[in-house]
Amino acid sequence: MSNHQQLTVIDMGIDTHQEPVVFMREDCPICRAEGFNATSRIAIFYRDKQIVATLNVVTTNVLPVEHIGFSNIALQRLGAVDGVTVAVSHAPLVESISAVRKKIFGHRLNEAELANIIEDVNCHYYRDVEIASFLTICAGNRLDLKEIIDLTRAMVASGKRLIWPEQDRVFDKHCIGGLPGNRTTPIVVAIVSAAGLVIPKTSSRAITSPAGTADTMEVLTTVNLDLHHLQSVVQQTGACLAWGGAVNLSPADDLLIRIERILDLDGEGQLIASVLSKKIAAGATDVVIDIPVGPTAKVRTEANARRLTDLFTQVGDALGIRVRCVITGGSNPVGFGIGPVEEARDVVAVLLGLPDAPRDLRERSLLLSAHLLDMAGGDGLDRATERAEKLLDQGNAWRQFLAIVTAQGGIKTLPDDNKYQHTELVQDSGVVSAIDNRRLARLAKLAGAPEDPGAGLRLYFNVGDRLAAGAKLFTLFSDSKGEKEYAMEFYNTNRDMIVLGQE
Amino acid sequence: MSNHQQLTVIDMGIDTHQEPVVFMREDCPICRAEGFNATSRIAIFYRDKQIVATLNVVTTNVLPVEHIGFSNIALQRLGAVDGVTVAVSHAPLVESISAVRKKIFGHRLNEAELANIIEDVNCHYYRDVEIASFLTICAGNRLDLKEIIDLTRAMVASGKRLIWPEQDRVFDKHCIGGLPGNRTTPIVVAIVSAAGLVIPKTSSRAITSPAGTADTMEVLTTVNLDLHHLQSVVQQTGACLAWGGAVNLSPADDLLIRIERILDLDGEGQLIASVLSKKIAAGATDVVIDIPVGPTAKVRTEANARRLTDLFTQVGDALGIRVRCVITGGSNPVGFGIGPVEEARDVVAVLLGLPDAPRDLRERSLLLSAHLLDMAGGDGLDRATERAEKLLDQGNAWRQFLAIVTAQGGIKTLPDDNKYQHTELVQDSGVVSAIDNRRLARLAKLAGAPEDPGAGLRLYFNVGDRLAAGAKLFTLFSDSKGEKEYAMEFYNTNRDMIVLGQE
Repeated sequence: MSNHQQLTVIDMGIDTHQEPVVFMREDCPICRAEGFNATSRIAIFYRDKQIVATLNVVTTNVLPVEHIGFSNIALQRLGAVDGVTVAVSHAPLVESISAVRKKIFGHRLNEAELANIIEDVNCHYYRDVEIASFLTICAGNRLDLKEIIDLTRAMVASGKRLIWPEQDRVFDKHCIGGLPGNRTTPIVVAIVSAAGLVIPKTSSRAITSPAGTADTMEVLTTVNLDLHHLQSVVQQTGACLAWGGAVNLSPADDLLIRIERILDLDGEGQLIASVLSKKIAAGATDVVIDIPVGPTAKVRTEANARRLTDLFTQVGDALGIRVRCVITGGSNPVGFGIGPVEEARDVVAVLLGLPDAPRDLRERSLLLSAHLLDMAGGDGLDRATERAEKLLDQGNAWRQFLAIVTAQGGIKTLPDDNKYQHTELVQDSGVVSAIDNRRLARLAKLAGAPEDPGAGLRLYFNVGDRLAAGAKLFTLFSDSKGEKEYAMEFYNTNRDMIVLGQE
Repeated sequence: MSNHQQLTVIDMGIDTHQEPVVFMREDCPICRAEGFNATSRIAIFYRDKQIVATLNVVTTNVLPVEHIGFSNIALQRLGAVDGVTVAVSHAPLVESISAVRKKIFGHRLNEAELANIIEDVNCHYYRDVEIASFLTICAGNRLDLKEIIDLTRAMVASGKRLIWPEQDRVFDKHCIGGLPGNRTTPIVVAIVSAAGLVIPKTSSRAITSPAGTADTMEVLTTVNLDLHHLQSVVQQTGACLAWGGAVNLSPADDLLIRIERILDLDGEGQLIASVLSKKIAAGATDVVIDIPVGPTAKVRTEANARRLTDLFTQVGDALGIRVRCVITGGSNPVGFGIGPVEEARDVVAVLLGLPDAPRDLRERSLLLSAHLLDMAGGDGLDRATERAEKLLDQGNAWRQFLAIVTAQGGIKTLPDDNKYQHTELVQDSGVVSAIDNRRLARLAKLAGAPEDPGAGLRLYFNVGDRLAAGAKLFTLFSDSKGEKEYAMEFYNTNRDMIVLGQE
């Protein structure tokens, strides 16, 4: 890392998502002197900052000599702008990669190894293919309890940690996902904070689903709160409904999640470490975790759900956080909407007690609220359930929801339905006997969710309903003609994702 | 895949290695209409060809409207040039990815699943992170015998297959690697083809080592032979020493190897499938495989070597090729040179019988030649060894080597030593008691091998030698000052890669 070479920055205006890429001419003397070639990893220095980026060698006149082109994320991470001078050298060797290789060959990782891996990921020293390799070898139940504890601790250490000095107990909830439309969080937060519990809820964006809670809340209010704003919202209302990424809790996890999303992979140990590290970093002392179980949910069997429950509880114990897992039914999508805007419509309908509000979303929200109230008060689930119902039905929860979103920046009006839509009709009458959640979620994603908040699905049935031929089955919404057609092409070759049988 | 949109091609002159990348403006109507975003996968059509590429969205004026920028490999694979019109659409869903996920979650892959994965990799439908995930989950002995057989068969089916209609038996040899400098192939091919065996040897470039046989042969002659030329060389001489990549044997393997190289990962099942698929595709009926065993070689224990022997033999049986594995010592580097040019010097020295030729390289070459001659003739290893020695010592092997390289295009003069070099001297006298092959190989790679053929190491000792203080230990060669300094920085923090003890 001697021999830092000077080059002038050019903003290439190229969006390479999270992976920093820089461009150098093949005839650049520094490129030749340092022996750089395409896909070399190089370190770039500017003022007191350093980043590691992947090199793309440019063979024609895209770039003047003695210049270095930057992709957007590379420029942003280095804090540099067009025209400044930077120094370059070979990237340092990433020693923790050898621990990943050790894990591939069947050995356990110790605390220091996991800490080093997460630190190096956090510094963006890992290439995308190396992150993919690490995630792959940790998936499929390949992390044991000790490794998950160490991984969780390393992820907490990688970011900021919120402190609530005046609070003895701070609550939180999480659903491990896999059920399209299962958007209980805004309702639960409204109910339990209306009951006086402190619940500074930070949520993620979608990992492999068509919407995360942060995506859904973003169509209703501002979720991109800085730390100061978030703390002030919680001080005013006892709660918040914010995006966790903006406050930099567990930032290494955000880098891992980006590759998990591409690979559509969400391993058990990674999942536990991701969830609990964010809860601990958010300052929670008591957490309820919703584990839906169903043939096409993320957790397929009761046995797996119990295994996950044990692991969550034990990792929580080791890290000093009380965890209560609630195993729920996960055979069907929840509510009628899938995708940020459509799910927001369901949330508002339940909070307002509208007659067409989805019953299943209401019931699930009450159940989880009751578990949180019971953890806080200890007077049993029955009384806690009654209390939750009252808070919802008498409008306290809706008023509390409005207080939270007002403190966050005000409520937004839900947009009109997307321009490109297709309503699918029932071909042969029958009873809805089964739904493939994974393929239904994929359909909504192909339509453009969650990147396009208005994209997604509205279903017109519950499982068990009898539908007549010609009745509406669902409407698909897209922001573009291409996506609409692409999604419908997938539906037409996967029509058995919704099974209509005879009674 | 309806709705193909037309755009004009611009050659961006950007080298992204093997991963095809295309660039579109974020305000491009097609980008918006199709819902493309950064890192979307898109299909591009030109005449009768189609490729899948990763999209980088361009946010400033790098590109005129209604144009699409191409990286070098994208342009080359599509067979398009600057100015032509192409159509674009969403990339097809890659169904075989779900089989990779299934494997991650602990299930076996069947023949059809492996065939689909290899076919999709071969069509460049996999992203780099998806290839990384597949390689990772196959490494660490996670493929069983049946899976390795099916993977091998799929890889053979992915490429061309050479046919030698006039030959009953066609020989081949392979070393599974891990020993720096173990460049026996050119010597073995020269000896056994001088004895009349047909051995159309195609070799790979380095995967994780500082030189592959193709890299070393390339400093001595042309290795980039097309199929016609290769067949003519074999017709004339009974042998060749060519690069396998040029004749497109097992092309899917080449795509996998690129990512294996970045991950420095070379899993057992992948290894067997890679080796045997190339031998079968090259038309071999009889193969000798050299498996060096040592504490820092690729195979660390006798037990692992025997396991690998069994697997190689069984996969060979299933696919109709006779395989004989030879387990050899693998504690020390072989010869004195590491890196393409330095290894070529050793090869020539052994073939010419020069007094300073490395003895270990000679002995290993004779042993492997004897096994091949014994497979062919069946009159025992002792007589085969005598015969191999005679062919080498009486110059037949050297004359045969010259005949082969002459048929391939003539022998090249070895270049002078690289400009940037450093000779390391012994600090305290002692006996060389151990060498870490992996770190020695890494040192040569950091110096620039194999990309720069002249880069690498020349050692001045064998294990067991007593070295006086001030004597030469090794010389490191680089094509650039940066690489030399970078490599020496690594050496200086890893001086125990060569252990000098007291007697």
